[in-house]
Amino acid sequence: MTARAGVVGFRGYSGAELVAILDRHPKVEPWLLEHRTDAGEKPRPQNAKTYPRVPCSAEVVRKERLAVVFLATPPEVSMELAPAMLEAGAKVVDLSGAFRLRTADNYANWYKEQHTQPELLAEAVYGLPEFYRQHISKARLVANPGCYPTAASLAIRPLVASAAADRSAGIVCDAKSGVSGAGRKPSLKTSFCEVTENFSAYSILNHRHVPEVLMNCGLDEKEFSFVAHLLPLDRGILETVYFRLSPGVDEATLASVYEKWYGHEPFVRLYEPGQVPDLHAVRRTNFCDIGLRADPKTGRGVVVAAIDNLVKGAAGQAVQNMNLMLGYPETEGLL
Amino acid sequence: MTARAGVVGFRGYSGAELVAILDRHPKVEPWLLEHRTDAGEKPRPQNAKTYPRVPCSAEVVRKERLAVVFLATPPEVSMELAPAMLEAGAKVVDLSGAFRLRTADNYANWYKEQHTQPELLAEAVYGLPEFYRQHISKARLVANPGCYPTAASLAIRPLVASAAADRSAGIVCDAKSGVSGAGRKPSLKTSFCEVTENFSAYSILNHRHVPEVLMNCGLDEKEFSFVAHLLPLDRGILETVYFRLSPGVDEATLASVYEKWYGHEPFVRLYEPGQVPDLHAVRRTNFCDIGLRADPKTGRGVVVAAIDNLVKGAAGQAVQNMNLMLGYPETEGLL
Amino acid sequence: MTARAGVVGFRGYSGAELVAILDRHPKVEPWLLEHRTDAGEKPRPQNAKTYPRVPCSAEVVRKERLAVVFLATPPEVSMELAPAMLEAGAKVVDLSGAFRLRTADNYANWYKEQHTQPELLAEAVYGLPEFYRQHISKARLVANPGCYPTAASLAIRPLVASAAADRSAGIVCDAKSGVSGAGRKPSLKTSFCEVTENFSAYSILNHRHVPEVLMNCGLDEKEFSFVAHLLPLDRGILETVYFRLSPGVDEATLASVYEKWYGHEPFVRLYEPGQVPDLHAVRRTNFCDIGLRADPKTGRGVVVAAIDNLVKGAAGQAVQNMNLMLGYPETEGLL
Amino acid sequence: MTARAGVVGFRGYSGAELVAILDRHPKVEPWLLEHRTDAGEKPRPQNAKTYPRVPCSAEVVRKERLAVVFLATPPEVSMELAPAMLEAGAKVVDLSGAFRLRTADNYANWYKEQHTQPELLAEAVYGLPEFYRQHISKARLVANPGCYPTAASLAIRPLVASAAADRSAGIVCDAKSGVSGAGRKPSLKTSFCEVTENFSAYSILNHRHVPEVLMNCGLDEKEFSFVAHLLPLDRGILETVYFRLSPGVDEATLASVYEKWYGHEPFVRLYEPGQVPDLHAVRRTNFCDIGLRADPKTGRGVVVAAIDNLVKGAAGQAVQNMNLMLGYPETEGLL
Repeated sequence: MTARAGVVGFRGYSGAELVAILDRHPKVEPWLLEHRTDAGEKPRPQNAKTYPRVPCSAEVVRKERLAVVFLATPPEVSMELAPAMLEAGAKVVDLSGAFRLRTADNYANWYKEQHTQPELLAEAVYGLPEFYRQHISKARLVANPGCYPTAASLAIRPLVASAAADRSAGIVCDAKSGVSGAGRKPSLKTSFCEVTENFSAYSILNHRHVPEVLMNCGLDEKEFSFVAHLLPLDRGILETVYFRLSPGVDEATLASVYEKWYGHEPFVRLYEPGQVPDLHAVRRTNFCDIGLRADPKTGRGVVVAAIDNLVKGAAGQAVQNMNLMLGYPETEGLL
Repeated sequence: MTARAGVVGFRGYSGAELVAILDRHPKVEPWLLEHRTDAGEKPRPQNAKTYPRVPCSAEVVRKERLAVVFLATPPEVSMELAPAMLEAGAKVVDLSGAFRLRTADNYANWYKEQHTQPELLAEAVYGLPEFYRQHISKARLVANPGCYPTAASLAIRPLVASAAADRSAGIVCDAKSGVSGAGRKPSLKTSFCEVTENFSAYSILNHRHVPEVLMNCGLDEKEFSFVAHLLPLDRGILETVYFRLSPGVDEATLASVYEKWYGHEPFVRLYEPGQVPDLHAVRRTNFCDIGLRADPKTGRGVVVAAIDNLVKGAAGQAVQNMNLMLGYPETEGLL
Repeated sequence: MTARAGVVGFRGYSGAELVAILDRHPKVEPWLLEHRTDAGEKPRPQNAKTYPRVPCSAEVVRKERLAVVFLATPPEVSMELAPAMLEAGAKVVDLSGAFRLRTADNYANWYKEQHTQPELLAEAVYGLPEFYRQHISKARLVANPGCYPTAASLAIRPLVASAAADRSAGIVCDAKSGVSGAGRKPSLKTSFCEVTENFSAYSILNHRHVPEVLMNCGLDEKEFSFVAHLLPLDRGILETVYFRLSPGVDEATLASVYEKWYGHEPFVRLYEPGQVPDLHAVRRTNFCDIGLRADPKTGRGVVVAAIDNLVKGAAGQAVQNMNLMLGYPETEGLL
Repeated sequence: MTARAGVVGFRGYSGAELVAILDRHPKVEPWLLEHRTDAGEKPRPQNAKTYPRVPCSAEVVRKERLAVVFLATPPEVSMELAPAMLEAGAKVVDLSGAFRLRTADNYANWYKEQHTQPELLAEAVYGLPEFYRQHISKARLVANPGCYPTAASLAIRPLVASAAADRSAGIVCDAKSGVSGAGRKPSLKTSFCEVTENFSAYSILNHRHVPEVLMNCGLDEKEFSFVAHLLPLDRGILETVYFRLSPGVDEATLASVYEKWYGHEPFVRLYEPGQVPDLHAVRRTNFCDIGLRADPKTGRGVVVAAIDNLVKGAAGQAVQNMNLMLGYPETEGLL
């Protein structure tokens, strides 16, 4: 029998992607949970597929025995809904930033508002399966990582952990994202005429995703520079990581470090020297593709990582986490 | 009376841009110089503007008294044509990489072919007016800078010269360019379906534009990392420069450094703290827009520079150089 | 001395285009008229060009002696502002639909609201210079045509007037526009992620621009079919017109009909048989490009017309009208 | 046991799409058949999925017992390969135009070259399952329809067959396609810089897909006008069909006509009045979405049809045909 998986925020880009992935998943059935403004729209075309659609409430979740609820909602809504969903017996995967940082102080510092659920914050497990698989499989509440930190952490952690990079010189992450990362709410910034044939930097050195990367990679903020950029395309994130090679490190060393970290990972694909990922390679997949380059003559190294921000950077990773939490094979519905 | 300015390679993107700029220039008249495959095409529509069109030969250049010839051609063609054009009495602005580096050895090292005109290479002046205005105004042969090095050098040189950046930690330049930078010749890489909704890195740590930046900024190759990326848009380059702040440097210091370097430059526009350039701001202009950010708490700094690769990165700067070489006001036809 | 030209709605796409065109116009100086929400924004970058900026009121217009005021505003705002601006002594070019139709009833029928200025409606002159040049030059109030009707009317009127088309079989106009035609106000429909890699039809057989075409071409609504489509690009309109050839009409006949109508027009360019306009050809120009095709074997004909919706379809044509109204050469500032 | 399905031309856009669809198909296994220039490329990334890859020859096809061979090749290559593949015991689905028309004369007329396999041409079945399902299921050789005719025929045939349209006034089909329809071979026409922010008409009244539509809909060439246009996007075709309503036909009549034709079709989706398909709705699906509009007051009607040119317009429909030819459920692998 299939489990029921509720989705709050199913009209947003991440939420809609979640529903599409869950629809293909052999072991679960997507249920749409209507919250506030999610008034019923007519399906288009008339014979389009539809899903069970119920109000988002603890009563409904308990009565319908939803096994898991995905919150594809803003942080303040996630903080409001998570406790009720958990109490109604569902496991929760939250796609917002509400439960990603470890302390309420750190949250207040980066998100500029008080955290209203500090106990849940303490309980939540950070949902990057490649690093925290064991904890995730036992968690009630998983904080799905930010899109930028997913690619950045997978790219940088092996460098730091293996000391292949000389972190004293600083590690730079230049990140570029498609527009869907900004959500579906209309704004001038994401209007077609403002974005097409344009490219811009934003959140220079102060993006709220930075603390996630520091946490995952064990870096100090003085060792890390991050700038986000907006690409004139729908979906995809590519990050270019720059670092100084530690003495004696060459391309073969780098390759073996990443092979050791990710050789058996189902959703990380390594490129051979001379090959580099691009966004087409990861589009609509749950893969994080990684390419490496080292130039021992100048002592400089570069790692390029690419993901689909709506899949490995959001909905796909959320389902990967759900698979772990419900005891399904980790890749179920994702290949 | 207007001077005649010949354009070789007028069918390419840079060449066509040159013709358009020269057409608006009050003191010159564009002449199309047909070289090899530039067979006559019918103008479209029938009443479109046309220009004098003659074979590209020393005889024609001499007889028609062209004051200047622009070579919007590949390096090997520029090496072939430059001597003849100079001998025919024209000044030459070469938009290729043929005459940008200082020695034939360095050229052979980066361009993987022998330089056939080492004496002219020695004579050529590098045409970045903001740095080399005096030399340009006396030159017969000017090497128009590469598109990437134009933005990179304008962004980085003040940092190095003022020691605002701690170069021992390395300077990173993450560069992104529109597709017109790759030229007009059809290739799979620049095909619409390969580029749209895509983004990729290329020439990782070994782009042939690197030595120009090193030369302009006085950097050693161990101090500089450069990766080029292909944006899914027509025109524009945005470069994000990362560095460690020297002790005591904050945003006000940075601002005053750049103000000193560029406060009187007609084609460099500085942004106030908190404002950042984007590609729309420089589209179809000869401006290089520069934004600054320093975070003394972490000791990190960022400079963002934006240009139109076909204007300040090619045809516009070529005309700026021509203005200097022919004794016209530097901004003539460019504002 | 230059005349002062006020622009209301200068933050919209048409308004901004107007300011840019007026800035290049040798005989006028743009003044920004702040209406309601047009609060002062800081220019970006700091040394960007700025213009006189004053409140939009009859007092200011009278005191500063503005010669003309452009209303790049919604119809209801235009109806409100036009009388005051006229009374303050300025001529008015309205870019909205407020004064394009001939009667208040027809307006109410298509715009679904009452017209509040029926006398001005009766006085207003429809501003398509190629057809109504004489009236425009004497007008106080000119209704600038809609973007779609500009291309459609220029393409269709010669067909009807010359009887080259057999109108009894109906004339079809399939129209495609870039996103800037929808204005700058953020909406889901014009969000990047909804538009990129998408294409859609809208206002099928009931677009409010239809009555302008009927009026200009002398067609009955039973003889005309019009569907608008949204292109995933910034600016440009291309319309494909289908009709049945009248007996004896071939490509040469068609060509001579259009040559007679437009051979001396400065802003209409005709293509030779086999050549067809596209949006790049008219981008950022005030031209309407027209291509023709007739197939006597099947008795079918096609006319393709292309304009830049923000120039010939809005701001450029508005300046063309202003030139006529103020007695300047019609092409001043537009070539 | 799964059947083996060979793909010739697997590097092209249609061929690659075919391999991807076959890969998801539970009953077949894709085999790559190398023809001429299909030299082996290294997979990217290193752990990417690979498929059996063998030379394209009758011997291999016979020995490996391929059940079906798809020819995603130019017409002249298809004419060369089809006989050999059939003789080797495989059924053949040809995606080119080689076997779509009924006579060698008609082929020569539209394709401007002689047909070299007139007997096979006579035997071939036109592969539009919604119209010719029974014949396809018994065929050895199926000619997969052109992308434009697929949408056009599905949109127009019910109009003609039911006499809901007054064909004496002519039927107009304005067709717009994404760039992948032009194939993967680099050309200036499909270069990014030429296509982005552009839109153009081509093959005006003489596209070689026209005879397929005439054949499928029973129209005479005097009754049909067709113009193709190039959209600045990757994949998708939208066609807008204009016609005069026969007396007494209204929107309800139209809806019931299409409901009767397509109500039970798995791959045609009908929209309710007021709703219209767009390209996002059909992207990466095998659906043809159809919207209807009738305006009895003016006697005009419009049908809008949308498909993904690489799926329902090529690879998806080819697999739909294969399902019929091999006795599988028609929707297998396609939903």
